[in-house]
Amino acid sequence: MSRFLSSKYDSLVPYVPGEQPRDRKFIKLNTNESPFPPSPLAVEYAQNEAPNCRLYSDPELTELKKALCDVYGTKPERVIFSNGSDDMLNYAFMCFCDEEHPAAFADITYGLYSVLAALNRVRTLVFPLREDFTLDVSDYTNINATIFIANPNAPTGIALPVIEIERILSTNPDNVVVVDEAYVDFGAASVMKLTEKYENLLVIGTFSKSRSLAGARLGYACGNEELIKDIDAIRYSLNPYNVNRMTLAAGVGALEDDEYNRKNCAVIIENREYTMREMKALGFELTDSKANFVFARHPRFSGEYIYSRLREKGILVRHFSDERIRDHNRITIGTLEDMKELIKSLKEITEE
Amino acid sequence: MSRFLSSKYDSLVPYVPGEQPRDRKFIKLNTNESPFPPSPLAVEYAQNEAPNCRLYSDPELTELKKALCDVYGTKPERVIFSNGSDDMLNYAFMCFCDEEHPAAFADITYGLYSVLAALNRVRTLVFPLREDFTLDVSDYTNINATIFIANPNAPTGIALPVIEIERILSTNPDNVVVVDEAYVDFGAASVMKLTEKYENLLVIGTFSKSRSLAGARLGYACGNEELIKDIDAIRYSLNPYNVNRMTLAAGVGALEDDEYNRKNCAVIIENREYTMREMKALGFELTDSKANFVFARHPRFSGEYIYSRLREKGILVRHFSDERIRDHNRITIGTLEDMKELIKSLKEITEE
Repeated sequence: MSRFLSSKYDSLVPYVPGEQPRDRKFIKLNTNESPFPPSPLAVEYAQNEAPNCRLYSDPELTELKKALCDVYGTKPERVIFSNGSDDMLNYAFMCFCDEEHPAAFADITYGLYSVLAALNRVRTLVFPLREDFTLDVSDYTNINATIFIANPNAPTGIALPVIEIERILSTNPDNVVVVDEAYVDFGAASVMKLTEKYENLLVIGTFSKSRSLAGARLGYACGNEELIKDIDAIRYSLNPYNVNRMTLAAGVGALEDDEYNRKNCAVIIENREYTMREMKALGFELTDSKANFVFARHPRFSGEYIYSRLREKGILVRHFSDERIRDHNRITIGTLEDMKELIKSLKEITEE
Repeated sequence: MSRFLSSKYDSLVPYVPGEQPRDRKFIKLNTNESPFPPSPLAVEYAQNEAPNCRLYSDPELTELKKALCDVYGTKPERVIFSNGSDDMLNYAFMCFCDEEHPAAFADITYGLYSVLAALNRVRTLVFPLREDFTLDVSDYTNINATIFIANPNAPTGIALPVIEIERILSTNPDNVVVVDEAYVDFGAASVMKLTEKYENLLVIGTFSKSRSLAGARLGYACGNEELIKDIDAIRYSLNPYNVNRMTLAAGVGALEDDEYNRKNCAVIIENREYTMREMKALGFELTDSKANFVFARHPRFSGEYIYSRLREKGILVRHFSDERIRDHNRITIGTLEDMKELIKSLKEITEE
């Protein structure tokens, strides 16, 4: 760091994304990308838009809002888009957290929440998950904080039922509750419809996982019109053209081809069930994942060991060094072939 | 605004971008876009990358850094990219401004600076330009502030000679000086090379203007390695995959085809000289613009009047309501045909 960097960041520890290997060819199960290419319609629309890039993108995001509303049955005034959902999470921290409104989230959840809290110099209330990594909703009832819940949670994949989220919403009428549904399409229930009932609910989603557009960077939020206006004020102040033309077009294509998305999700869910069955047979203990990844430990091997041995065998998974989950690995669900390779390797490792 | 929005934004006035008309067909001279399409190579690379968007983009920006270094003769450790240069400006405000380091800039300059200062709750030192809109360098010598200078300035187009910028750099060894070179390719001198001499210099550039990629969103910064590391820490904390795959590829194509860029700039400069000559003949007073726009007033007509009459005639230009420049309009340089249409319309308006 330079001597010019503001001292307000003295204790900032930047987020560390999963490896993006550029040399060796891996079976890449470490960053929860989809094993399927984007919808052909998404690709076609993006390609058709490339020659038009001399002009700024539409700051009002009109076409994409319309396409999202057609799929989710909501109104353009209730949705907004960002350069990946990480950006939307930051908007939420900026808008709804301050000295009087700390951020509350679980000890084991998406690692970016604590980084964004530090970056925005927001106090945090961190509630430990139960021993089995389930979330105790009573921790979040009647608290004076902006609440961030990943549902399903990462890296555990455990989903919270809608009724539990409603309990948090209804007992915190003066706090915004952000439900991060990055992985919701793989078997959990979305609360997007509840944005019509609760003015304090902000649902954040992404095109990175189920819609195979991680590399296009497209996130969205859905909420009460007034919440969306707040975010829009910040978006206009930071970067009014925050989503580029090609990604806007890809997003429209992906939404028009929602059938493709649903079919891929069904295959990923099937592959997840296969993977969980086979890993259990090898002695692994797994959480009840409703996401496009599994979260697993083996009673006889450290998480680090499994990670390293898989890496040697050409398979990348995600290992976290946090004390509570260092025995685990998070493994993205790929194609059935990928998962068969994984199981074969895990069999070799655990039977050596 | 909702009752949930943090009170820290009570006085925030979001930036208002130029109109992006989606219905009627205008000759669009209001947002300083290039009249030329992106380089065919940029389009081809972006299109080839679209099918790969299931994977996250390279957080290390490796290929694009290499391509930029090949054109500008610098080192990968000294450059970084962002989702448009607006995002880079925000990184600079975040990194180098705080309670002890206010932001200093001109009263008439890129409007986003004051918005970003408000958003980051940074105190500002605003120095009025001279009556003729030139910048008085002595305002900026030996001040205890982070300095933002658009060179050429917007919306005036007036350029500051390198020697004047060096005077600011050398008299402010403990302050970062941000030189925003969005428009530098149209006739001003870049100070990018000076980043090797001054550790306090950060040069910000964009692919939006001369490289015809406004809609792809690509900005960059060049500076001392330590400054770049500061920005990278913030970038990793906010959004490690901040530039999408298609834009990364388009950027590489645009840089490999730098000849195309230079040719377009030469045409735009020629068209600017034509436009200035013709407008002067119609009685307009113009600043000495080195950008891809002119900044003009007419002694007999208000800026608002010229703007409105041009709009009626199907030509969009940019009018600002600030007291000091409300008699002016900023007019983007388009194709020669566009400019002939403009002159024809201005002739009609001023001779009525």
